[in-house]
Amino acid sequence: MAEEFNTGLPSTRQVQTAIKNKQEVELKLLTNDLIAGKVKWQDSDCICIVDHYDQPTIVWRHAIAYLKPKA
Amino acid sequence: MAEEFNTGLPSTRQVQTAIKNKQEVELKLLTNDLIAGKVKWQDSDCICIVDHYDQPTIVWRHAIAYLKPKA
Amino acid sequence: MAEEFNTGLPSTRQVQTAIKNKQEVELKLLTNDLIAGKVKWQDSDCICIVDHYDQPTIVWRHAIAYLKPKA
Amino acid sequence: MAEEFNTGLPSTRQVQTAIKNKQEVELKLLTNDLIAGKVKWQDSDCICIVDHYDQPTIVWRHAIAYLKPKA
Amino acid sequence: MAEEFNTGLPSTRQVQTAIKNKQEVELKLLTNDLIAGKVKWQDSDCICIVDHYDQPTIVWRHAIAYLKPKA
Amino acid sequence: MAEEFNTGLPSTRQVQTAIKNKQEVELKLLTNDLIAGKVKWQDSDCICIVDHYDQPTIVWRHAIAYLKPKA
Repeated sequence: MAEEFNTGLPSTRQVQTAIKNKQEVELKLLTNDLIAGKVKWQDSDCICIVDHYDQPTIVWRHAIAYLKPKA
Repeated sequence: MAEEFNTGLPSTRQVQTAIKNKQEVELKLLTNDLIAGKVKWQDSDCICIVDHYDQPTIVWRHAIAYLKPKA
Repeated sequence: MAEEFNTGLPSTRQVQTAIKNKQEVELKLLTNDLIAGKVKWQDSDCICIVDHYDQPTIVWRHAIAYLKPKA
Repeated sequence: MAEEFNTGLPSTRQVQTAIKNKQEVELKLLTNDLIAGKVKWQDSDCICIVDHYDQPTIVWRHAIAYLKPKA
Repeated sequence: MAEEFNTGLPSTRQVQTAIKNKQEVELKLLTNDLIAGKVKWQDSDCICIVDHYDQPTIVWRHAIAYLKPKA
Repeated sequence: MAEEFNTGLPSTRQVQTAIKNKQEVELKLLTNDLIAGKVKWQDSDCICIVDHYDQPTIVWRHAIAYLKPKA
Protein backbone atom coordinates (compact mmCIF):
# COMPACT_ATOMS: atom_id res chain seq x y z
CA MET A 1 0.00 0.00 0.00
CA ALA A 2 2.59 2.48 1.11
CA GLU A 3 5.28 1.32 -1.31
CA GLU A 4 6.80 4.11 -3.34
CA PHE A 5 5.21 4.91 -6.69
CA ASN A 6 7.77 4.70 -9.49
CA THR A 7 6.75 7.42 -11.92
CA GLY A 8 9.73 6.59 -14.10
CA LEU A 9 8.38 3.20 -15.22
CA PRO A 10 7.43 3.03 -18.93
CA SER A 11 3.99 1.67 -18.00
CA THR A 12 3.39 4.51 -15.53
CA ARG A 13 4.54 7.08 -18.05
CA GLN A 14 2.25 5.67 -20.75
CA VAL A 15 -0.71 5.96 -18.40
CA GLN A 16 0.44 9.50 -17.56
CA THR A 17 0.53 10.34 -21.28
CA ALA A 18 -3.00 8.95 -21.68
CA ILE A 19 -4.12 11.30 -18.86
CA LYS A 20 -2.45 14.33 -20.46
CA ASN A 21 -3.85 13.56 -23.93
CA LYS A 22 -7.35 12.77 -22.59
CA GLN A 23 -7.08 9.57 -24.60
CA GLU A 24 -9.95 7.05 -24.61
CA VAL A 25 -8.78 3.72 -23.24
CA GLU A 26 -10.15 0.30 -22.43
CA LEU A 27 -9.25 -1.48 -19.21
CA LYS A 28 -9.86 -5.22 -19.15
CA LEU A 29 -10.25 -6.51 -15.60
CA LEU A 30 -9.67 -9.94 -14.06
CA THR A 31 -13.46 -10.07 -13.58
CA ASN A 32 -13.68 -9.81 -17.39
CA ASP A 33 -15.31 -6.39 -17.04
CA LEU A 34 -14.28 -3.91 -19.71
CA ILE A 35 -14.07 -0.32 -18.43
CA ALA A 36 -13.90 2.34 -21.14
CA GLY A 37 -13.24 6.05 -20.75
CA LYS A 38 -10.53 8.56 -20.07
CA VAL A 39 -7.86 8.11 -17.43
CA LYS A 40 -8.31 10.81 -14.80
CA TRP A 41 -5.50 9.95 -12.38
CA GLN A 42 -3.30 7.11 -11.19
CA ASP A 43 -1.52 6.29 -7.97
CA SER A 44 0.42 3.25 -6.79
CA ASP A 45 -2.77 1.31 -6.01
CA CYS A 46 -5.40 2.50 -8.49
CA ILE A 47 -6.23 3.96 -11.88
CA CYS A 48 -9.32 6.19 -12.14
CA ILE A 49 -11.39 6.08 -15.35
CA VAL A 50 -14.18 8.59 -16.09
CA ASP A 51 -16.94 7.79 -18.54
CA HIS A 52 -18.82 10.10 -20.95
CA TYR A 53 -20.94 11.43 -18.08
CA ASP A 54 -17.78 12.20 -16.09
CA GLN A 55 -18.63 9.42 -13.62
CA PRO A 56 -15.47 8.03 -12.04
CA THR A 57 -14.60 4.37 -11.55
CA ILE A 58 -11.63 3.72 -9.28
CA VAL A 59 -9.99 0.51 -10.51
CA TRP A 60 -7.47 -1.35 -8.35
CA ARG A 61 -4.27 -2.17 -10.26
CA HIS A 62 -4.22 -5.73 -8.94
CA ALA A 63 -7.51 -6.28 -10.81
CA ILE A 64 -6.26 -5.01 -14.20
CA ALA A 65 -5.41 -7.50 -16.95
CA TYR A 66 -4.58 -5.00 -19.69
CA LEU A 67 -5.02 -1.45 -20.94
CA LYS A 68 -5.24 -0.39 -24.56
CA PRO A 69 -6.26 2.65 -26.59
CA LYS A 70 -9.94 2.47 -27.47
CA ALA A 71 -10.42 1.11 -30.97
CA MET B 1 -0.34 -7.10 6.51
CA ALA B 2 1.69 -4.78 8.67
CA GLU B 3 2.81 -2.52 5.83
CA GLU B 4 2.24 1.16 6.49
CA PHE B 5 -1.06 2.66 5.32
CA ASN B 6 -0.49 5.61 3.00
CA THR B 7 -3.30 8.03 3.78
CA GLY B 8 -1.90 10.51 1.29
CA LEU B 9 -2.70 8.39 -1.78
CA PRO B 10 -5.43 9.86 -4.02
CA SER B 11 -7.32 6.55 -3.93
CA THR B 12 -7.21 6.45 -0.12
CA ARG B 13 -8.32 10.06 0.12
CA GLN B 14 -11.25 9.47 -2.25
CA VAL B 15 -12.42 6.58 -0.06
CA GLN B 16 -11.95 8.84 2.98
CA THR B 17 -14.11 11.50 1.31
CA ALA B 18 -16.80 8.88 0.61
CA ILE B 19 -16.76 8.00 4.33
CA LYS B 20 -17.08 11.63 5.40
CA ASN B 21 -19.89 12.37 2.91
CA LYS B 22 -21.77 9.14 3.70
CA GLN B 23 -21.81 8.58 -0.03
CA GLU B 24 -23.45 5.45 -1.51
CA VAL B 25 -20.90 3.40 -3.43
CA GLU B 26 -20.68 0.15 -5.33
CA LEU B 27 -17.76 -2.21 -4.87
CA LYS B 28 -17.25 -4.78 -7.61
CA LEU B 29 -15.31 -7.79 -6.35
CA LEU B 30 -13.14 -10.33 -8.15
CA THR B 31 -15.86 -12.86 -7.31
CA ASN B 32 -18.17 -10.65 -9.43
CA ASP B 33 -20.18 -9.80 -6.30
CA LEU B 34 -21.43 -6.23 -6.20
CA ILE B 35 -21.50 -4.76 -2.69
CA ALA B 36 -23.52 -1.55 -2.33
CA GLY B 37 -23.72 0.76 0.65
CA LYS B 38 -21.85 3.41 2.55
CA VAL B 39 -18.17 3.17 3.38
CA LYS B 40 -17.79 2.97 7.16
CA TRP B 41 -14.02 2.71 7.51
CA GLN B 42 -10.89 1.63 5.69
CA ASP B 43 -7.52 0.33 6.74
CA SER B 44 -4.54 -0.98 4.79
CA ASP B 45 -6.17 -4.41 4.32
CA CYS B 46 -9.91 -3.82 4.15
CA ILE B 47 -12.80 -1.50 3.33
CA CYS B 48 -15.98 -1.83 5.41
CA ILE B 49 -19.35 -1.25 3.71
CA VAL B 50 -22.63 -0.96 5.63
CA ASP B 51 -25.97 -1.61 3.98
CA HIS B 52 -29.37 0.02 4.58
CA TYR B 53 -29.87 -2.07 7.73
CA ASP B 54 -26.46 -0.92 9.03
CA GLN B 55 -25.09 -4.46 8.54
CA PRO B 56 -21.33 -4.36 7.92
CA THR B 57 -19.43 -6.26 5.25
CA ILE B 58 -15.64 -6.24 5.64
CA VAL B 59 -14.17 -6.46 2.15
CA TRP B 60 -10.50 -7.33 1.62
CA ARG B 61 -8.77 -4.86 -0.72
CA HIS B 62 -7.09 -7.67 -2.67
CA ALA B 63 -10.58 -8.81 -3.69
CA ILE B 64 -11.74 -5.43 -5.00
CA ALA B 65 -11.91 -4.81 -8.76
CA TYR B 66 -13.37 -1.32 -8.66
CA LEU B 67 -15.32 1.23 -6.61
CA LYS B 68 -17.73 3.79 -7.99
CA PRO B 69 -20.42 6.15 -6.72
CA LYS B 70 -23.80 4.43 -6.79
CA ALA B 71 -25.73 5.35 -9.92
CA MET C 1 4.68 -15.12 5.16
CA ALA C 2 6.87 -13.87 7.96
CA GLU C 3 5.69 -10.25 7.78
CA GLU C 4 4.62 -8.82 11.10
CA PHE C 5 0.95 -9.16 12.06
CA ASN C 6 -0.59 -5.78 12.80
CA THR C 7 -3.05 -6.41 15.60
CA GLY C 8 -3.90 -2.72 15.75
CA LEU C 9 -5.65 -2.67 12.36
CA PRO C 10 -9.43 -2.10 12.57
CA SER C 11 -10.04 -5.18 10.40
CA THR C 12 -7.87 -7.35 12.64
CA ARG C 13 -9.57 -6.01 15.76
CA GLN C 14 -13.04 -6.70 14.34
CA VAL C 15 -12.05 -10.30 13.66
CA GLN C 16 -10.62 -10.46 17.19
CA THR C 17 -13.94 -9.20 18.58
CA ALA C 18 -15.79 -11.86 16.58
CA ILE C 19 -13.53 -14.49 18.19
CA LYS C 20 -14.15 -13.17 21.69
CA ASN C 21 -17.93 -12.92 21.18
CA LYS C 22 -18.17 -16.35 19.51
CA GLN C 23 -20.07 -14.56 16.78
CA GLU C 24 -21.38 -16.48 13.74
CA VAL C 25 -19.84 -15.11 10.56
CA GLU C 26 -19.84 -15.79 6.84
CA LEU C 27 -16.64 -15.74 4.82
CA LYS C 28 -17.05 -15.39 1.06
CA LEU C 29 -14.04 -16.75 -0.80
CA LEU C 30 -12.60 -15.95 -4.23
CA THR C 31 -13.69 -19.48 -5.21
CA ASN C 32 -17.24 -18.32 -4.42
CA ASP C 33 -17.39 -20.76 -1.50
CA LEU C 34 -19.26 -19.45 1.52
CA ILE C 35 -17.80 -20.64 4.83
CA ALA C 36 -20.04 -20.14 7.85
CA GLY C 37 -19.20 -20.62 11.50
CA LYS C 38 -17.36 -19.07 14.39
CA VAL C 39 -13.91 -17.58 14.10
CA LYS C 40 -11.52 -19.64 16.23
CA TRP C 41 -8.24 -17.82 15.61
CA GLN C 42 -6.44 -15.61 13.12
CA ASP C 43 -2.83 -15.03 12.21
CA SER C 44 -1.15 -12.96 9.48
CA ASP C 45 -1.84 -15.63 6.84
CA CYS C 46 -5.07 -17.34 7.82
CA ILE C 47 -8.43 -17.17 9.58
CA CYS C 48 -9.78 -20.39 11.14
CA ILE C 49 -13.53 -21.02 11.11
CA VAL C 50 -15.20 -23.84 13.06
CA ASP C 51 -18.60 -25.20 12.11
CA HIS C 52 -21.42 -26.55 14.29
CA TYR C 53 -19.56 -29.87 14.70
CA ASP C 54 -16.45 -27.98 15.82
CA GLN C 55 -14.68 -28.98 12.56
CA PRO C 56 -12.03 -26.39 11.64
CA THR C 57 -11.45 -24.89 8.21
CA ILE C 58 -8.23 -22.91 7.84
CA VAL C 59 -8.88 -20.19 5.26
CA TRP C 60 -6.00 -18.28 3.66
CA ARG C 61 -6.51 -14.51 3.82
CA HIS C 62 -5.49 -14.06 0.18
CA ALA C 63 -8.54 -16.15 -0.74
CA ILE C 64 -11.07 -14.09 1.26
CA ALA C 65 -13.39 -11.69 -0.55
CA TYR C 66 -15.41 -10.54 2.45
CA LEU C 67 -16.53 -11.34 5.99
CA LYS C 68 -19.86 -10.44 7.52
CA PRO C 69 -21.94 -11.34 10.56
CA LYS C 70 -24.23 -14.24 9.76
CA ALA C 71 -27.71 -13.03 8.88
CA MET D 1 10.07 -16.08 -2.65
CA ALA D 2 13.02 -15.64 -0.34
CA GLU D 3 11.04 -14.16 2.54
CA GLU D 4 11.60 -15.87 5.87
CA PHE D 5 9.29 -18.73 6.79
CA ASN D 6 7.57 -18.06 10.11
CA THR D 7 7.28 -21.47 11.74
CA GLY D 8 5.72 -19.89 14.81
CA LEU D 9 2.47 -18.93 13.06
CA PRO D 10 -0.60 -20.89 14.26
CA SER D 11 -1.45 -21.79 10.64
CA THR D 12 2.07 -23.09 9.99
CA ARG D 13 2.04 -25.06 13.22
CA GLN D 14 -1.32 -26.66 12.40
CA VAL D 15 0.04 -27.78 9.04
CA GLN D 16 3.14 -29.08 10.85
CA THR D 17 0.89 -31.05 13.24
CA ALA D 18 -0.98 -32.53 10.25
CA ILE D 19 2.40 -33.67 8.85
CA LYS D 20 3.45 -35.27 12.14
CA ASN D 21 0.09 -37.02 12.64
CA LYS D 22 -0.11 -38.20 8.99
CA GLN D 23 -3.59 -36.68 9.03
CA GLU D 24 -5.78 -36.83 5.89
CA VAL D 25 -6.63 -33.32 4.73
CA GLU D 26 -8.46 -31.59 1.92
CA LEU D 27 -7.00 -28.56 0.17
CA LYS D 28 -9.45 -26.43 -1.79
CA LEU D 29 -7.70 -24.42 -4.50
CA LEU D 30 -8.61 -21.17 -6.24
CA THR D 31 -9.09 -23.29 -9.38
CA ASN D 32 -11.82 -25.12 -7.39
CA ASP D 33 -9.71 -28.29 -7.45
CA LEU D 34 -9.92 -30.34 -4.27
CA ILE D 35 -6.65 -32.08 -3.40
CA ALA D 36 -6.94 -34.81 -0.76
CA GLY D 37 -4.18 -36.71 0.96
CA LYS D 38 -1.53 -36.38 3.62
CA VAL D 39 0.68 -33.36 4.03
CA LYS D 40 4.28 -34.41 3.34
CA TRP D 41 6.10 -31.10 3.80
CA GLN D 42 5.63 -27.35 3.69
CA ASP D 43 7.87 -24.40 2.98
CA SER D 44 7.20 -20.68 2.62
CA ASP D 45 5.91 -21.10 -0.97
CA CYS D 46 4.30 -24.53 -1.13
CA ILE D 47 2.51 -27.37 0.64
CA CYS D 48 3.12 -30.91 -0.65
CA ILE D 49 0.25 -33.44 -0.53
CA VAL D 50 0.72 -37.15 -1.22
CA ASP D 51 -2.17 -39.35 -2.29
CA HIS D 52 -2.88 -43.03 -1.51
CA TYR D 53 -0.32 -44.12 -4.12
CA ASP D 54 2.29 -41.85 -2.50
CA GLN D 55 2.20 -39.57 -5.58
CA PRO D 56 3.14 -36.00 -4.59
CA THR D 57 1.35 -32.82 -5.64
CA ILE D 58 3.22 -29.61 -4.89
CA VAL D 59 0.60 -26.92 -4.27
CA TRP D 60 1.54 -23.24 -4.27
CA ARG D 61 0.24 -21.43 -1.17
CA HIS D 62 -1.03 -18.49 -3.25
CA ALA D 63 -3.43 -20.94 -4.92
CA ILE D 64 -4.91 -22.34 -1.68
CA ALA D 65 -8.36 -21.24 -0.55
CA TYR D 66 -8.65 -23.45 2.52
CA LEU D 67 -7.43 -26.59 4.27
CA LYS D 68 -9.49 -28.85 6.45
CA PRO D 69 -9.28 -32.32 7.98
CA LYS D 70 -10.79 -34.88 5.63
CA ALA D 71 -14.37 -35.67 6.60
CA MET E 1 5.38 -1.04 -7.85
CA ALA E 2 8.73 0.58 -7.20
CA GLU E 3 10.61 -2.65 -6.57
CA GLU E 4 13.78 -2.98 -8.58
CA PHE E 5 13.54 -4.65 -11.97
CA ASN E 6 15.93 -7.58 -12.19
CA THR E 7 17.11 -7.62 -15.79
CA GLY E 8 19.38 -10.55 -15.04
CA LEU E 9 16.53 -13.04 -14.51
CA PRO E 10 16.29 -15.73 -17.23
CA SER E 11 12.60 -14.91 -17.74
CA THR E 12 13.34 -11.21 -18.17
CA ARG E 13 16.17 -11.95 -20.57
CA GLN E 14 13.98 -14.26 -22.67
CA VAL E 15 11.37 -11.51 -22.98
CA GLN E 16 14.19 -9.10 -23.87
CA THR E 17 15.37 -11.50 -26.60
CA ALA E 18 11.81 -11.70 -27.96
CA ILE E 19 11.80 -7.87 -28.17
CA LYS E 20 15.16 -7.76 -30.00
CA ASN E 21 14.17 -10.52 -32.46
CA LYS E 22 10.69 -9.05 -33.07
CA GLN E 23 9.40 -12.53 -32.32
CA GLU E 24 5.65 -13.28 -32.45
CA VAL E 25 4.44 -14.46 -29.05
CA GLU E 26 1.24 -15.49 -27.34
CA LEU E 27 0.40 -14.29 -23.86
CA LYS E 28 -2.25 -16.26 -22.00
CA LEU E 29 -3.91 -14.19 -19.27
CA LEU E 30 -5.69 -15.15 -16.06
CA THR E 31 -8.87 -13.88 -17.75
CA ASN E 32 -8.26 -16.60 -20.36
CA ASP E 33 -7.64 -13.91 -22.99
CA LEU E 34 -4.94 -14.79 -25.51
CA ILE E 35 -2.93 -11.76 -26.64
CA ALA E 36 -0.80 -12.34 -29.74
CA GLY E 37 1.80 -10.04 -31.27
CA LYS E 38 5.30 -8.75 -30.82
CA VAL E 39 6.73 -7.66 -27.49
CA LYS E 40 7.48 -3.96 -27.66
CA TRP E 41 8.84 -3.32 -24.17
CA GLN E 42 8.76 -4.64 -20.62
CA ASP E 43 9.16 -3.09 -17.19
CA SER E 44 8.78 -4.47 -13.67
CA ASP E 45 4.96 -4.17 -13.82
CA CYS E 46 3.97 -4.69 -17.45
CA ILE E 47 4.71 -6.24 -20.82
CA CYS E 48 3.57 -4.34 -23.93
CA ILE E 49 2.38 -6.33 -26.97
CA VAL E 50 1.72 -4.73 -30.36
CA ASP E 51 -0.54 -6.37 -32.93
CA HIS E 52 -0.32 -6.39 -36.75
CA TYR E 53 -1.74 -2.86 -36.87
CA ASP E 54 0.92 -1.70 -34.39
CA GLN E 55 -1.79 -1.19 -31.73
CA PRO E 56 -0.32 -1.61 -28.25
CA THR E 57 -1.81 -3.59 -25.39
CA ILE E 58 -0.20 -3.00 -22.00
CA VAL E 59 -0.52 -6.24 -20.03
CA TRP E 60 0.06 -6.31 -16.29
CA ARG E 61 2.48 -9.09 -15.25
CA HIS E 62 0.24 -10.16 -12.37
CA ALA E 63 -2.39 -11.08 -14.98
CA ILE E 64 -0.09 -13.25 -17.12
CA ALA E 65 -0.38 -17.05 -16.94
CA TYR E 66 2.18 -17.91 -19.61
CA LEU E 67 4.09 -16.69 -22.66
CA LYS E 68 5.13 -18.79 -25.61
CA PRO E 69 6.41 -18.30 -29.14
CA LYS E 70 3.52 -18.15 -31.57
CA ALA E 71 2.95 -21.52 -33.22
CA MET F 1 10.44 -9.07 -9.16
CA ALA F 2 13.95 -8.44 -7.89
CA GLU F 3 13.49 -10.37 -4.64
CA GLU F 4 16.18 -12.94 -3.97
CA PHE F 5 15.59 -16.46 -5.23
CA ASN F 6 15.84 -18.97 -2.40
CA THR F 7 17.38 -22.07 -3.96
CA GLY F 8 17.38 -23.78 -0.59
CA LEU F 9 13.58 -24.09 -0.39
CA PRO F 10 12.28 -27.69 -0.64
CA SER F 11 9.88 -26.65 -3.43
CA THR F 12 12.68 -25.00 -5.41
CA ARG F 13 14.93 -28.02 -4.94
CA GLN F 14 12.20 -30.42 -6.10
CA VAL F 15 11.75 -28.37 -9.27
CA GLN F 16 15.55 -28.37 -9.67
CA THR F 17 15.56 -32.18 -9.34
CA ALA F 18 12.83 -32.42 -12.00
CA ILE F 19 15.06 -30.34 -14.32
CA LYS F 20 18.11 -32.54 -13.69
CA ASN F 21 16.14 -35.79 -14.16
CA LYS F 22 14.32 -34.52 -17.29
CA GLN F 23 11.16 -35.64 -15.51
CA GLU F 24 7.75 -35.21 -17.21
CA VAL F 25 5.53 -32.97 -15.08
CA GLU F 26 2.10 -31.41 -15.17
CA LEU F 27 1.52 -27.81 -14.16
CA LYS F 28 -2.05 -26.86 -13.33
CA LEU F 29 -2.63 -23.14 -13.73
CA LEU F 30 -5.15 -20.77 -12.15
CA THR F 31 -6.68 -20.49 -15.65
CA ASN F 32 -7.32 -24.25 -15.36
CA ASP F 33 -4.83 -24.86 -18.20
CA LEU F 34 -2.75 -28.00 -17.77
CA ILE F 35 0.79 -27.62 -19.12
CA ALA F 36 2.68 -30.89 -19.56
CA GLY F 37 6.33 -31.40 -20.41
CA LYS F 38 9.81 -31.20 -18.97
CA VAL F 39 11.01 -28.38 -16.77
CA LYS F 40 13.79 -26.54 -18.58
CA TRP F 41 14.65 -23.83 -16.07
CA GLN F 42 13.23 -21.84 -13.17
CA ASP F 43 13.86 -18.43 -11.71
CA SER F 44 12.17 -16.43 -8.97
CA ASP F 45 9.31 -15.36 -11.29
CA CYS F 46 8.83 -18.20 -13.77
CA ILE F 47 9.09 -21.91 -14.55
CA CYS F 48 9.79 -22.88 -18.18
CA ILE F 49 8.22 -26.08 -19.57
CA VAL F 50 9.18 -27.58 -22.94
CA ASP F 51 6.87 -29.92 -24.80
CA HIS F 52 7.67 -32.94 -27.02
CA TYR F 53 8.59 -30.60 -29.90
CA ASP F 54 10.96 -28.70 -27.60
CA GLN F 55 8.65 -25.67 -27.71
CA PRO F 56 9.00 -23.60 -24.52
CA THR F 57 6.17 -22.17 -22.42
CA ILE F 58 7.24 -19.64 -19.80
CA VAL F 59 4.78 -19.94 -16.91
CA TRP F 60 4.58 -17.24 -14.24
CA ARG F 61 4.74 -18.71 -10.72
CA HIS F 62 1.84 -16.54 -9.52
CA ALA F 63 -0.36 -18.40 -12.04
CA ILE F 64 0.58 -21.91 -10.86
CA ALA F 65 -1.84 -23.92 -8.74
CA TYR F 66 0.15 -27.13 -8.50
CA LEU F 67 2.89 -29.26 -10.04
CA LYS F 68 3.01 -33.02 -10.09
CA PRO F 69 4.91 -35.80 -11.86
CA LYS F 70 3.10 -36.81 -15.03
CA ALA F 71 0.99 -39.90 -14.42
